[in-house]
Amino acid sequence: MANQASHSRRASKKQAAAVPPVVSVIMGSKSDWETMKNASDVLTEFGVAHECRVISAHRTPEVLTGFATTAEARGIEVIIAGAGAAAHLAGVTAAQTVLPVLGVPIESKALHGLDSLLSIVQMPGGIPVGTLAIGASGAKNAALFAIAILAGKKARLREKLKQYREKMKRKAAEETLP
Amino acid sequence: MANQASHSRRASKKQAAAVPPVVSVIMGSKSDWETMKNASDVLTEFGVAHECRVISAHRTPEVLTGFATTAEARGIEVIIAGAGAAAHLAGVTAAQTVLPVLGVPIESKALHGLDSLLSIVQMPGGIPVGTLAIGASGAKNAALFAIAILAGKKARLREKLKQYREKMKRKAAEETLP
Amino acid sequence: MANQASHSRRASKKQAAAVPPVVSVIMGSKSDWETMKNASDVLTEFGVAHECRVISAHRTPEVLTGFATTAEARGIEVIIAGAGAAAHLAGVTAAQTVLPVLGVPIESKALHGLDSLLSIVQMPGGIPVGTLAIGASGAKNAALFAIAILAGKKARLREKLKQYREKMKRKAAEETLP
Amino acid sequence: MANQASHSRRASKKQAAAVPPVVSVIMGSKSDWETMKNASDVLTEFGVAHECRVISAHRTPEVLTGFATTAEARGIEVIIAGAGAAAHLAGVTAAQTVLPVLGVPIESKALHGLDSLLSIVQMPGGIPVGTLAIGASGAKNAALFAIAILAGKKARLREKLKQYREKMKRKAAEETLP
Amino acid sequence: MANQASHSRRASKKQAAAVPPVVSVIMGSKSDWETMKNASDVLTEFGVAHECRVISAHRTPEVLTGFATTAEARGIEVIIAGAGAAAHLAGVTAAQTVLPVLGVPIESKALHGLDSLLSIVQMPGGIPVGTLAIGASGAKNAALFAIAILAGKKARLREKLKQYREKMKRKAAEETLP
Amino acid sequence: MANQASHSRRASKKQAAAVPPVVSVIMGSKSDWETMKNASDVLTEFGVAHECRVISAHRTPEVLTGFATTAEARGIEVIIAGAGAAAHLAGVTAAQTVLPVLGVPIESKALHGLDSLLSIVQMPGGIPVGTLAIGASGAKNAALFAIAILAGKKARLREKLKQYREKMKRKAAEETLP
Amino acid sequence: MANQASHSRRASKKQAAAVPPVVSVIMGSKSDWETMKNASDVLTEFGVAHECRVISAHRTPEVLTGFATTAEARGIEVIIAGAGAAAHLAGVTAAQTVLPVLGVPIESKALHGLDSLLSIVQMPGGIPVGTLAIGASGAKNAALFAIAILAGKKARLREKLKQYREKMKRKAAEETLP
Amino acid sequence: MANQASHSRRASKKQAAAVPPVVSVIMGSKSDWETMKNASDVLTEFGVAHECRVISAHRTPEVLTGFATTAEARGIEVIIAGAGAAAHLAGVTAAQTVLPVLGVPIESKALHGLDSLLSIVQMPGGIPVGTLAIGASGAKNAALFAIAILAGKKARLREKLKQYREKMKRKAAEETLP
Repeated sequence: MANQASHSRRASKKQAAAVPPVVSVIMGSKSDWETMKNASDVLTEFGVAHECRVISAHRTPEVLTGFATTAEARGIEVIIAGAGAAAHLAGVTAAQTVLPVLGVPIESKALHGLDSLLSIVQMPGGIPVGTLAIGASGAKNAALFAIAILAGKKARLREKLKQYREKMKRKAAEETLP
Repeated sequence: MANQASHSRRASKKQAAAVPPVVSVIMGSKSDWETMKNASDVLTEFGVAHECRVISAHRTPEVLTGFATTAEARGIEVIIAGAGAAAHLAGVTAAQTVLPVLGVPIESKALHGLDSLLSIVQMPGGIPVGTLAIGASGAKNAALFAIAILAGKKARLREKLKQYREKMKRKAAEETLP
Repeated sequence: MANQASHSRRASKKQAAAVPPVVSVIMGSKSDWETMKNASDVLTEFGVAHECRVISAHRTPEVLTGFATTAEARGIEVIIAGAGAAAHLAGVTAAQTVLPVLGVPIESKALHGLDSLLSIVQMPGGIPVGTLAIGASGAKNAALFAIAILAGKKARLREKLKQYREKMKRKAAEETLP
Repeated sequence: MANQASHSRRASKKQAAAVPPVVSVIMGSKSDWETMKNASDVLTEFGVAHECRVISAHRTPEVLTGFATTAEARGIEVIIAGAGAAAHLAGVTAAQTVLPVLGVPIESKALHGLDSLLSIVQMPGGIPVGTLAIGASGAKNAALFAIAILAGKKARLREKLKQYREKMKRKAAEETLP
Repeated sequence: MANQASHSRRASKKQAAAVPPVVSVIMGSKSDWETMKNASDVLTEFGVAHECRVISAHRTPEVLTGFATTAEARGIEVIIAGAGAAAHLAGVTAAQTVLPVLGVPIESKALHGLDSLLSIVQMPGGIPVGTLAIGASGAKNAALFAIAILAGKKARLREKLKQYREKMKRKAAEETLP
Repeated sequence: MANQASHSRRASKKQAAAVPPVVSVIMGSKSDWETMKNASDVLTEFGVAHECRVISAHRTPEVLTGFATTAEARGIEVIIAGAGAAAHLAGVTAAQTVLPVLGVPIESKALHGLDSLLSIVQMPGGIPVGTLAIGASGAKNAALFAIAILAGKKARLREKLKQYREKMKRKAAEETLP
Repeated sequence: MANQASHSRRASKKQAAAVPPVVSVIMGSKSDWETMKNASDVLTEFGVAHECRVISAHRTPEVLTGFATTAEARGIEVIIAGAGAAAHLAGVTAAQTVLPVLGVPIESKALHGLDSLLSIVQMPGGIPVGTLAIGASGAKNAALFAIAILAGKKARLREKLKQYREKMKRKAAEETLP
Repeated sequence: MANQASHSRRASKKQAAAVPPVVSVIMGSKSDWETMKNASDVLTEFGVAHECRVISAHRTPEVLTGFATTAEARGIEVIIAGAGAAAHLAGVTAAQTVLPVLGVPIESKALHGLDSLLSIVQMPGGIPVGTLAIGASGAKNAALFAIAILAGKKARLREKLKQYREKMKRKAAEETLP
């Protein structure tokens, strides 16, 4: 599992081994990183140990199977999967784990993410994917949703979420128009 | 909170008071029940105490505010919100609680739920709604996702989820074509 | 209500207190101002006292409730609400006041405002939002519609509307092609 | 103006002449009545004198011009226009009067009202149409919006609107799930 | 009818009066010219006398009525109407003349001409508009279609159309790939 | 050309040979007749000699080439082509004749004619197809448009068109609401 | 591989073992059979040995991996995969075999197969799925396409395809309109 | 067939005659080359002799008929057709040959390829077109699909496909995030 595409954005080099990730942020292609780093940034801001990896349902299906079937045993509690166009990553991951899987539709070139959205959200009964908005907002919100899930066990995170909301409110209240 | 729209599907009449709900299934209109009972049925099957209520972001905004701002204190851990057309219920609920909120787009008459889906999933950065598929599949999956969230704390539920998957697999394997 | 996001575009600094606003232009985010200033500019051109504020249904729901439930008492007669993507601002405002609420769908990044439009216009029976076009044309027209409403009581505004139309016709008649 | 397509739903036969309509409900075709009667019913419920007429922007353009250019002089204060498919009725009416014009997209056969909606709502800057939802909900809400406009002058209507909302809230609160 | 927006692209200054237009190219706004000049250019190439005018169904409805009701008497044989968004120009023109009316959907900002297309093409039974493609191709083809109509009476034009096709074929056959 | 799919709806059996068709109504499949008979009925009502044939761009391309390349020589002046889904009939016909070709998008099963519409209307510059509405309205209007084209040469048809419009207006004026 | 969902439609019971399938028709759910039997029927008509199985990318991912990774070794030459909504079956199969995979979008309940289509066709560069039309036509055509592929090696099938086309042409030529 | 639009990208000048093409890449317009060269590049990389030509279903229908009806005799085994907007090229080709035809929807200006996709994929039962994704990914995948077809006869190509996949996997595995 220690492949090169994996990295822990939060951990400094020394502590990396000490803080095993609880959230896994995967994406179908390196080009999705521009969107998905918004998820990683929020997780970092909340101090949530996480890993970010490129895994493709189409190019590396065995890696995906390996990832999905061992995630729970590795201590992962939530998976965030971003993919575009015929976006199968989230659904195929969800099919191979009972962990909660969040899907982020990447804005695709021709159809602007409508294809990504429908490919992710319209899952058949039995295998859920909690889907967020197309693009950067969705990536950011996937992280916040993952934190809300983790907060069910960690009071500290719930407090941080409340503070985050308060900060957001204050910032909104301070916005002035030209 | 003991209004008539509330009920606990799981509890027998005697035990109702003894098992406080941990999942709240709300919907914008009584007519959404045909879809949302799929969520309730799955929660019942997994033995998850839950309540089902009609609360409208448009017709009863104060009730919604009351519900959303007190849900955490009442012990609710996940909220499932189903609504159709200009479906604001999930988003407005999510704006007033840090609990995870799952959205189920009800199939609307004219646009077949495309309006419901976009109204629910395209949330701005900051306030996430984990969105499921349009209609009955989405309702069923919202319940399964809620259970996956709860399973983070309750090993029993995680086991049940795995058994549920196994049963689904066996059933699929046994399907014969004419 | 004297918060920093509020301002009266029409009033000169001295007279600001003397002319209470009758139209309120609210928007979900500061970034919507580029669109919504088209509404403010028309209101200013017609000499209609108005205020412009950033209020988010998602980030500042209590502020929105405070705003919507007191708008009538403050003398507001029409509310114009601009929002994008899962655009709940207009609908949630309309749910908390009986004043006429006009909705302006902001052009969103991925879906170009189709999500904004459907989220605003597809309101359920009972709570109307008068919806205008996506983007700048819609913002401009929301102001003209607000003026048409006010003109029911103020003959002066009806005359101004007729002059505005005449000017538009003359301008159109004078357009020459290369 | 006393043509056969015109009628006042509220007035009993004797009083018809005594109560001139203040709202005009027009529609492009007799087949739109099934939708548009929802507007008429609400206006009747609120005791608002109104007329209902079939006028087509395509089949009877002169009648439409006659109607639109004289509506204000006849005492009409709000126009509600329902039309389907390439729905030009609301926009062409709005082009010929400065009265507020509300548009109701009729659900069309092939495209389910998406064509009607876009044809009505996407008006260019200068000529607004306040657009409501596709179908019956939109017709009902057009009437409520018209009443909200009229309520700016008539305190009685504003009170009635508040009572209507209260009734709606009570009814929602009393809804029980099976 | 000699207004400033009118011009004959084909006629040299001296001969303008001598060649009355048989095709009228109208458009809702000056900004549509960039698209509609493609129609004018083709008509010029075929030597078809035509006029190009800005007439808006919304801003100048009386001018449109004047135009449409007198076009046949003025010798116009085909009308080409380009408009965008809630594009009513072609339909409202067709409602006021029995001349063939061709519609060109202008590419709109937010919805890229899908709204223009549906507003033009989805005409109710009784009033036809022959609709071409969105944008420049549509404008060019409207001119070619107008010429095909005129060619029913003028053998010279039919020959020119055949030559045009031949030239197009030769050009296609000569295209080489890099 | 005397195949069994061809018939002249207007002609009585004896006179069939005496009145050569000037309009050709073709359709991709026999199942399109339910829609396309609306075109035939209007042509019959106007006394326009026409033929109706099943010709498929996909199943019988040589027949289509034969038809399209000889239509002009046979005296056909306008072609009406109805097809559904990936509707290539109108465009491929237009590519092989300089006669005006009108396209009628048949309402398809899954996408309700949106595919048919886009396949017909979005022709590239050079080969125009005048496209009408999806379904029965479009078929009816294709016939009326064909008549408007023919009316350029036949004063009698222009008069009939005007009478048709007058009748339509009278009928609309006489419509009464319940 | 001898599971109950597998069957060979062509083979009589005795010969089943003697004719190993060369085409595999898989589908995500038993309910897809109504659509997919159109593929099986065509293959049977052409005498192509094939198997039909229910395999779900979501419910039975291991079965799918087993199927896809061994199909080539089992002598399968073409795979036809039908699935609906978030239809991942074809893409995930294609990711695990270099055999040609054809995708059939099943018409889904809410979005009528638009979701199925985009989920199947919008594959990223590297892993192709040859996609056919939504629904029964697509299933039938998938079989014909598979036969066209096999015909590259088997002259007999190419002849049969030509005969099939001829029959189709004759049938089309014999269609008479009422 | 030796026209100027034809070329063999693989062959060096001397060997061109020696290696007759087995795949034909055709496109409706020279401007489609930017997309379609992705198909040619992959074929070249796999050493598959192919030709690339501009043939338009609309501008050069006879050339298309000539091409399609003789392709099999010339030794072509797979045809790849790219076209945009009302994209008839693939379907009309498929109607005139029993060879497998792959369609690539070119991204169109206004509707971003949704029109191209529906025009290509929604073929009626009887004439299949195997459709790939909109744009460059689709062109690349059309080539890979053609190779998968050819690989049924040529073990060497199947091996190359497997190596291609392996390389893709290695490359994916080596992708590192910033």
